[in-house]
Amino acid sequence: MPKISQVGQKMPASPIRKLVPYAEEAKRRGVHVYHLNIGQPDIPTPDEALAAIRATDVRTIAYTHSAGIESYREALAQFYTRRGLSVTAEEIIVTTGGSEAIVMAMMAVCDRGDQIIVPEPYYANYNGFAAEAGVEIVPVRSWIENDFALPPIADFEQLITDRTRAILICNPNNPTGYLYSEAEILQLRDMVRKHDLFLMADEVYSDFCYNGAKHHSVLALDGMDEYVIMMDSISKRFSMCGARVGALVSRNREVIDAALRMGQARLCAPYVGQRAAEAALHTPQSYFTAVHDEYQARRDYMIGALNRMEGVRCPMPRGAFYAIAQLPVDDADRFAQWMLEHFEYKGRTVMVAPASGFYAQPESGRNQVRLAYVLNIDDLRAAMETLEMALKAYPGRTV
Amino acid sequence: MPKISQVGQKMPASPIRKLVPYAEEAKRRGVHVYHLNIGQPDIPTPDEALAAIRATDVRTIAYTHSAGIESYREALAQFYTRRGLSVTAEEIIVTTGGSEAIVMAMMAVCDRGDQIIVPEPYYANYNGFAAEAGVEIVPVRSWIENDFALPPIADFEQLITDRTRAILICNPNNPTGYLYSEAEILQLRDMVRKHDLFLMADEVYSDFCYNGAKHHSVLALDGMDEYVIMMDSISKRFSMCGARVGALVSRNREVIDAALRMGQARLCAPYVGQRAAEAALHTPQSYFTAVHDEYQARRDYMIGALNRMEGVRCPMPRGAFYAIAQLPVDDADRFAQWMLEHFEYKGRTVMVAPASGFYAQPESGRNQVRLAYVLNIDDLRAAMETLEMALKAYPGRTV
Repeated sequence: MPKISQVGQKMPASPIRKLVPYAEEAKRRGVHVYHLNIGQPDIPTPDEALAAIRATDVRTIAYTHSAGIESYREALAQFYTRRGLSVTAEEIIVTTGGSEAIVMAMMAVCDRGDQIIVPEPYYANYNGFAAEAGVEIVPVRSWIENDFALPPIADFEQLITDRTRAILICNPNNPTGYLYSEAEILQLRDMVRKHDLFLMADEVYSDFCYNGAKHHSVLALDGMDEYVIMMDSISKRFSMCGARVGALVSRNREVIDAALRMGQARLCAPYVGQRAAEAALHTPQSYFTAVHDEYQARRDYMIGALNRMEGVRCPMPRGAFYAIAQLPVDDADRFAQWMLEHFEYKGRTVMVAPASGFYAQPESGRNQVRLAYVLNIDDLRAAMETLEMALKAYPGRTV
Repeated sequence: MPKISQVGQKMPASPIRKLVPYAEEAKRRGVHVYHLNIGQPDIPTPDEALAAIRATDVRTIAYTHSAGIESYREALAQFYTRRGLSVTAEEIIVTTGGSEAIVMAMMAVCDRGDQIIVPEPYYANYNGFAAEAGVEIVPVRSWIENDFALPPIADFEQLITDRTRAILICNPNNPTGYLYSEAEILQLRDMVRKHDLFLMADEVYSDFCYNGAKHHSVLALDGMDEYVIMMDSISKRFSMCGARVGALVSRNREVIDAALRMGQARLCAPYVGQRAAEAALHTPQSYFTAVHDEYQARRDYMIGALNRMEGVRCPMPRGAFYAIAQLPVDDADRFAQWMLEHFEYKGRTVMVAPASGFYAQPESGRNQVRLAYVLNIDDLRAAMETLEMALKAYPGRTV
């Protein structure tokens, strides 16, 4: 019998994969499960996008240009430019979700065995993309004690080897919600220039910044055209995760050319999703304002509620819609499973993502969980009440 | 300035990439270009699929299950089973086009430096997928002289090394149109069992078989559950290339599990495409009959016309909608460019895909071109007339 590959064997499973059967079992028992474990927003997709899907009037759903539908790329370039990021259509490759943009970027800059330094905790799927690209992710630790701010540049520099090809940040950050300051982005700029590295930024949450905080895109950096690769997506911006439309944006011609050739191999990104994405660019500002206000209220409520629970610590995130909380438990993996398997309060329980899956060394996040505030306030309220009761009842409580 | 990777530099370009600017220039001069170079059918997508797209009524275009929408996988399993290929939903991973299924299969069975033996000429994008997966494609030559039949098993066996992990066939074949016989599939079965290799079959053209010829899927092989991986797509079956929905099908649990974990990393295949694909499974038989009859008539016309041209040889393909023709020219790459750059007849010219791009050694296909019969008969007629005149006028004609 033939054997599968090492890559196949080592492809990391989703951090919550082990929990899914317990969640299903809880539902079978009739328990309502609040899902704080996933980044699937409940926000409606803009009418403009849905109307475009329903108005599909082609006879044949044909391939599009491998770099993306031309008119969409033009409109997307204008969208970025209106935000102060001067970009042309030729500097954009439309991808199948932000996921593909990240894989393409990794493959474009790394050969097998090359390294990318990533502040941890980091988005767990980077591990999967790295396994596929044969890239080693080298984590540089950020800390809950200072709200998961950018680690000191000296910590990065200690990790740089002759195999280091890039620094990858997620800004605003999944899983921490941290929004990098301009000063931090400038520090990264100086470092990558000094060491001749690419600066890759996953900016799929750039629309989600709170209390008037400004997002500092790597595309805004002067004189860094050859160094910068930005990965974007419409999944969160327009609450269209299932459309699978993202973008790789770079002014480095070699990077774009490599990404285009990868794009040609897989032919194109989805047609209907691209059309919907193009239409979504006409979404009125009122939509974004409403979404922003909704998330800010959810965040304020959830982080407030968490910090009022005894023994819980949760930094106030300034972006995205995630937070990492430290819980008074022996083991967050065990606690998460216990909530699904053995706990209910008023017929409800909560599913969280143990933070261990977001650290290269699972021990580092042993008493932390990631919470996504993607539920409406009433549900969040019930979920927080349930979580608080669970923490009180959990046999492995530490304080 | 940081440098891109070897993978990025070596990602093969599309075989027709060099021709595209000449085609655009010809159009600017007002010349009508008949595109026989691409596999984008002009056939309409079934009404059932288009209606499903227009009926999209969700509020939020959300992620689907990473293995694909459950009801779609169930329906697809029934579709295969009705065709005599007994498959369960758990043996299917819905992919982003057939392209992703091929990449997943390569990564699931190969580590960097491993080898896959592929009869050549072969689909050029396999080179791109192999570059991404770090796989070496080892070509085994098939010959126009015997209609591109399966090479002798001894030719395969000469190429097997301790790095060989799989045999990959495309059946019916792109670019040759060859349909493998049951005897050939059984030979492959015996060989992969003897040498403990995976048998990967790209069967995206399985609906396109002519003159009553039967398609022999690798999934129909008894006792080969652990060896067989089938890659499928709705792109050609339902003329929905832009939907980007395919499938990886295997009864090998390790392969499915590895593919699922790759699927989880990239979250899901496109939602609207999957819904359309599910609806398309209700396409009436009359659609397939009409499409079959149309392609068979096109094939009969085009291959007949080609073989009537002096010095041209073109085997009669029994499947897909491609044919490889040998032309009386010094260099098919040069001839293809010349037709776009210097030739017109009644204000028309023809774009073909030089076959050099489908061979590992470009020299092997130096006087061959691939032609896709994806135009209606009237256009095909005009295209063949134009091609015949071009062959007569071409300065590099050899006979």
